[in-house]
Amino acid sequence: MQQNVDNLRHSAAHLLAAAVMQLWPGTLRAIGPAIEDGFYFDFEFETPISETDLPVIEKKMHELVSSWQSFERFELSKEEALEEYKDNPYKQELIEEFSKEGQSLTVYQSGDYRDLCRGGHIDHPSKELKHFKLLSIAGAYWRGSEKNNMLTRIYGTCFPTKDELQKYLIRIEEAKKRDHKILGPKLDLFTFSDKVGKGLPLWTPRGTLIRNLLDDFVWELRRTIGYAKVEIPHITKKDLYETSGHWEKFKEELFRITTREGHEFAMKPMNCPHHTQIFDRKPHSYREMPQRYATTTMVYRDEQSGELAGLSRVRCITQDDAHVFCRESQVEHEALAIWDIIEAFYRGTGFPQLSYRLSLHDPDHFEKYLGTREVWANAESQLRNMLTERGVAYVEAVGEAAFYGPKIDFISKDSLGRQWQVATIQIDRNMPERFNLSCINEQGEHERVVMIHAAIMGSIERFMSILIEHFAGAFPLWLAPVQVAVVPVGNNFDDLSQEVHLALRQEGMRSELDVSNKTLSAKIRDWTLQKVPYLCIIGGKEQEKRSTDGTLYVSIRTREGKDLGMVPLSEFMNKLRIAIEKKSI
Amino acid sequence: MQQNVDNLRHSAAHLLAAAVMQLWPGTLRAIGPAIEDGFYFDFEFETPISETDLPVIEKKMHELVSSWQSFERFELSKEEALEEYKDNPYKQELIEEFSKEGQSLTVYQSGDYRDLCRGGHIDHPSKELKHFKLLSIAGAYWRGSEKNNMLTRIYGTCFPTKDELQKYLIRIEEAKKRDHKILGPKLDLFTFSDKVGKGLPLWTPRGTLIRNLLDDFVWELRRTIGYAKVEIPHITKKDLYETSGHWEKFKEELFRITTREGHEFAMKPMNCPHHTQIFDRKPHSYREMPQRYATTTMVYRDEQSGELAGLSRVRCITQDDAHVFCRESQVEHEALAIWDIIEAFYRGTGFPQLSYRLSLHDPDHFEKYLGTREVWANAESQLRNMLTERGVAYVEAVGEAAFYGPKIDFISKDSLGRQWQVATIQIDRNMPERFNLSCINEQGEHERVVMIHAAIMGSIERFMSILIEHFAGAFPLWLAPVQVAVVPVGNNFDDLSQEVHLALRQEGMRSELDVSNKTLSAKIRDWTLQKVPYLCIIGGKEQEKRSTDGTLYVSIRTREGKDLGMVPLSEFMNKLRIAIEKKSI
Repeated sequence: MQQNVDNLRHSAAHLLAAAVMQLWPGTLRAIGPAIEDGFYFDFEFETPISETDLPVIEKKMHELVSSWQSFERFELSKEEALEEYKDNPYKQELIEEFSKEGQSLTVYQSGDYRDLCRGGHIDHPSKELKHFKLLSIAGAYWRGSEKNNMLTRIYGTCFPTKDELQKYLIRIEEAKKRDHKILGPKLDLFTFSDKVGKGLPLWTPRGTLIRNLLDDFVWELRRTIGYAKVEIPHITKKDLYETSGHWEKFKEELFRITTREGHEFAMKPMNCPHHTQIFDRKPHSYREMPQRYATTTMVYRDEQSGELAGLSRVRCITQDDAHVFCRESQVEHEALAIWDIIEAFYRGTGFPQLSYRLSLHDPDHFEKYLGTREVWANAESQLRNMLTERGVAYVEAVGEAAFYGPKIDFISKDSLGRQWQVATIQIDRNMPERFNLSCINEQGEHERVVMIHAAIMGSIERFMSILIEHFAGAFPLWLAPVQVAVVPVGNNFDDLSQEVHLALRQEGMRSELDVSNKTLSAKIRDWTLQKVPYLCIIGGKEQEKRSTDGTLYVSIRTREGKDLGMVPLSEFMNKLRIAIEKKSI
Repeated sequence: MQQNVDNLRHSAAHLLAAAVMQLWPGTLRAIGPAIEDGFYFDFEFETPISETDLPVIEKKMHELVSSWQSFERFELSKEEALEEYKDNPYKQELIEEFSKEGQSLTVYQSGDYRDLCRGGHIDHPSKELKHFKLLSIAGAYWRGSEKNNMLTRIYGTCFPTKDELQKYLIRIEEAKKRDHKILGPKLDLFTFSDKVGKGLPLWTPRGTLIRNLLDDFVWELRRTIGYAKVEIPHITKKDLYETSGHWEKFKEELFRITTREGHEFAMKPMNCPHHTQIFDRKPHSYREMPQRYATTTMVYRDEQSGELAGLSRVRCITQDDAHVFCRESQVEHEALAIWDIIEAFYRGTGFPQLSYRLSLHDPDHFEKYLGTREVWANAESQLRNMLTERGVAYVEAVGEAAFYGPKIDFISKDSLGRQWQVATIQIDRNMPERFNLSCINEQGEHERVVMIHAAIMGSIERFMSILIEHFAGAFPLWLAPVQVAVVPVGNNFDDLSQEVHLALRQEGMRSELDVSNKTLSAKIRDWTLQKVPYLCIIGGKEQEKRSTDGTLYVSIRTREGKDLGMVPLSEFMNKLRIAIEKKSI
C-alpha cells in the first residue's frame, strides 16, 4: 500500500518537473523523490520563483498530465546519458556515481517529459495522478551539504483520492494554526534572540513554569521509587568520551573547546558517561544496589543552522535524564518500574494511549554498535520478554537501537493523529564494560553491573513542542501558566477583584488580575487568546453578594467561551483544586 | 599595625632565605614577600627538598637570627647590582626591570646575609623575630606564568608573640580538619573524576540534596516577593558579549567554541546578558514593572589548572542568579527586598552576623569601567544612602566594584573567625544602556530601566565549601543529607527497626536503616563519623514497649555522643519537624 502511494508521489514529482521545464525551460533539474506525506523536487532556477508561482505550476501540471498515458523505460549507456544531460552538472554527477556503482542508467518518459530515474511510478498517470497540491518552497543544498549550491526545493503532496487530499490539507492547515513556533511566542512561553543565536531558546517565566511542572511531575514519580538527584557539569575532558565511545561516534556533533592551556574539552552531548563517574566514585556493596541517578540538565549538539526548527531541533536540549545501575537480577524489575513512570507521566500530560516499538540493532551493520553479538542478543530478548509480559502490541524495528544497546520506544499520538516517539528504556551492558563498573556481590567479588537509560520526556524542548501543538496552547489546568484571570467589568470593581485575586493566590492558584483600561470585551478576548482556562468576571451582582452576606462570588467563563454562571469563590476553588490534584485533562 | 606585622614577616622571609643559602649554597633565590597570615620565599634548588627539611631550616633560622642586630641598607648602581647577582637570572631580571622603571636599587644586609630588596623590615630582628614557623612547600612558576620555570616555594608564618603564633597554628590545624576537600568526599557530598577533569565537581546524591535544599530556600524567599524562574542555555554567540562588554573584558577566561559552521560561540561566564534578552522579548508597560528573573544555572570560566582548589575555585560555577529590571523609582525598594532575602538566608544557614562593604569604582582607573562618571556617582550615593538608612556599620572599598556598577557586599564570618564575601547587591545602569532596555511609562514614552544583580549564594560551589568547613560537616538538621540513622542492636530487631525507619520516611524524614553485619559500636561510630544528627537505637526495651502497648519507642543518640534516652517515636518526630521548619542551627 505505502509502495503504491510512494509511486504515485514520485510520479507527481516527475509531473512537477515537467511543468517547471515548460514554464522556465532554462531551469536545471536535480532530484525529486517521494517523502513522508508527499514529494519534492529540487531545481536551479535562472531567476528565483516564489510561492505565488505555485498555482501557475499546478495548473500546468493538470494540463500536462492528461497526455501522460504511462511511464516508458529506456536504458542508456553512460555516454548516451552524459550526452543527454550535458548541460546539467547535477545529473552528470549522478550518472558518474551510478555508473561507478555498476547500476544501469535508466530514463523514464511520459508525454514529452523525460528524466533520469531509477523507476517506481504508477501505471496510468493520466487516470491516477489527479489529487495533488503544491505546498511550499524552501532552499536546500545539493545533496544536503552546505558546501554545495543552494537549490530551490518545491514541496507538494498527492493522494489517491480527493477526499484523502482534502483531509490532509485540513490537517496541515490545523497543524499550522497549532505550530509551536508561532503559538509559543504568542503565549509568551519562549523566545529567541539574534544575539544569543539560533537553536538556543530562552525560556520566559510562563514557559519555564510549564517546564518545571513537567519536570517536577517526573521527579515525583521517580522519587517515590528511590531515585536520587545528582548534578554534573556541562563540559568534560575528551577522555571521558574516548572511553565511552561517543568521541569516535559523534565527533562531528560535539561542541569542542580548547582551553587556554591547550587541553581538549567537549560540551556534553549526553549524560550517561558523567553518571558512570558518580557511580564509580566508591565501591558499592550489593546491598546498595540499584543506584538510581537522575539529573535534569542541558546537553549540547552542534547542529547545522539549516536543520534547526523551533523547539523540535535545538542546539541545547534539556534532558530529564536518569540512569539505573543495577545487577543482572534487577534489570527487569527496574525497567518495568520505569515503564510505569512513563505510562503515568503520559497519562497525566494528555497522552493516555501509547504504542510500543522494540528497537533492535542492524545485524548487517554490526560495526555501528558497541559490544558483542551475544550481549546484544541477550539484551534484545530480555526486552522482548518484557513486552510479552506486559501483553502489549508492539513492532520491531531493526537498526533503531542506540549504539550501546537496544531499547523499547514509547510512541504517543497527538490530537492531529501524528505519532511522536517520546520516552525510551535502554538496557546497556556496554558502558559498564567500557567504564569497568561493578558492585561487590555476596561472595565479595566484583560483579559487572547493568545500566538502564531512562529519560521520560527525553528532550523537554521537543516534548514542549509536541505538548503545545497537541493542546493548541490550551494546556490542562495543572499545566496552565495562568490558571485564572480575574476581570472586573469596570474600574469600580477593582477592589473586589483584587480581593478575589488574592484569595486565589492564597490558595496557590496562578491568578492574574486585569485592571487595565481595556473594555470588558477586549479583556475577555485577550485572556481567551492567551488560553487561560477560567475567567472570573466581577461586577454588580458579585458586589451585591459581597455586601449582603459577605461571601465572595464569581461569574465563571471558560476559554471555550462557555458561561458557567455565578458561583461562590470557595466552590470554584474547590473544583480547581481537585482538577489540579488529579491532573485532569 | 598591619604594616608592622608585614615588616616582621618580610624580615622572616629574609631569615628563611639566609638559612636556605647556608644549608644549600648553590640555591638560586627569587622573591620573598609577606602575605596574608605569613610569608613565602621562592627558590630554585639544585636538588629538590621536601617538607621533612623544614625543621632543619627552622633550626638554622633560630641559630642565625641571634646575630641579626638590624637591617642595613645599601644603594647600588645597576652595574654593581648585576655584578653582585651575576649568577642569578631571577635577580638579574628584577634589576633590569627596576632600573627601567627608574627605581633605585637597594640591598639589605643583616648578619652575613644580603639580599636585593626594596625594604620594609623590623628594626631589631634578633629581639623581634622569634615566633615563626615554616608550614609547607609548593611549586610556583616564576612570576606566576606557566611559561616560566617552576620554583620551590616555602611558606611560613610569623607573629609578634608566641601566643598569637600558637593560636594561629591551632586555627590552621582546625581548618585542616575541616578542609572541605577532605571532608566533602568523606561525607560523600561530591567527587572528582580524572576523566571529567579538574575543577569540574560531580555532585553525589547527598551533595546534590544539600545544594537543592539551599537553592529551594533562596527560591522560597524570592517567590513570595514576586520573582519568576526563567531558563537559559549555557552558550551564546559572541555577539551577546560584544554588546555587554564581557568579550572585551573577560576574553581570556571564556571557554570559546567554534561551531562546525565556523561561528564563534562562548560558554556563558555570567547570566545577566541572557536575562536582558528575555526582558527584551517584548515591550513592557510600566504596569508590568519590575520584572524579576531568577535562574539557578552553571557558568563557566577557563581557569588555569594551577589555580583550581576543591570547590573554592572551579571551572563550572552554579549561580543562584537573579536580575531585577525596574524603574528608577523602584530601585531602592527592590534592593532592600534583596537585602532582606540575604539576611534571612544567611540566618537560616548559620551565619546570623553579616558585615557590610560598599564596593566603589577606582577613580584613578576609570578606563576599567563601563559608563560615565556621573552614572557611577549616582549609583554609589544611592547605595551609600541605603546603608545609612539601614543603620549598619560598613567599610568603603575603592576599586572593588564590578565593571558595570558599584555594589554592596555582604561578608560572613565562619566558626573559625574567617571572613568570606558571600552575597552582593549590584546596581547597574550600564547593561540597560548597552542593550537599550526600556519600559513604556505613563506618558507612553520609552523609559530606560535599571538592572539589579542579586545572587544570594553567588557560587553554590564556593558556598558549599564555606558551609562544610563552618559546620565541619555537621550540618543543621534541615540540611543534613541523612537526618536519622535507625540502628538495631542486633539482627532480631531488624523488623522493628524497619518499621521505625518507614515511619520516619513517611513523615518526610531522611532516614537510613542500618541492617549491615557490623557490630553496634561500629555502626554508631560510622554514622557519627558521617555526622548524622540523630541515631535511633532499637533493642529489647523498644521491642517490649512495642509488644505491650503497641507504641513505637526509640533510644536517641546525638552525633555529639549525647544519650537522650528512650522516647516515643511520635514525640521524637515532632521535635525534628519543628527544628526543620524553623531551620534551627
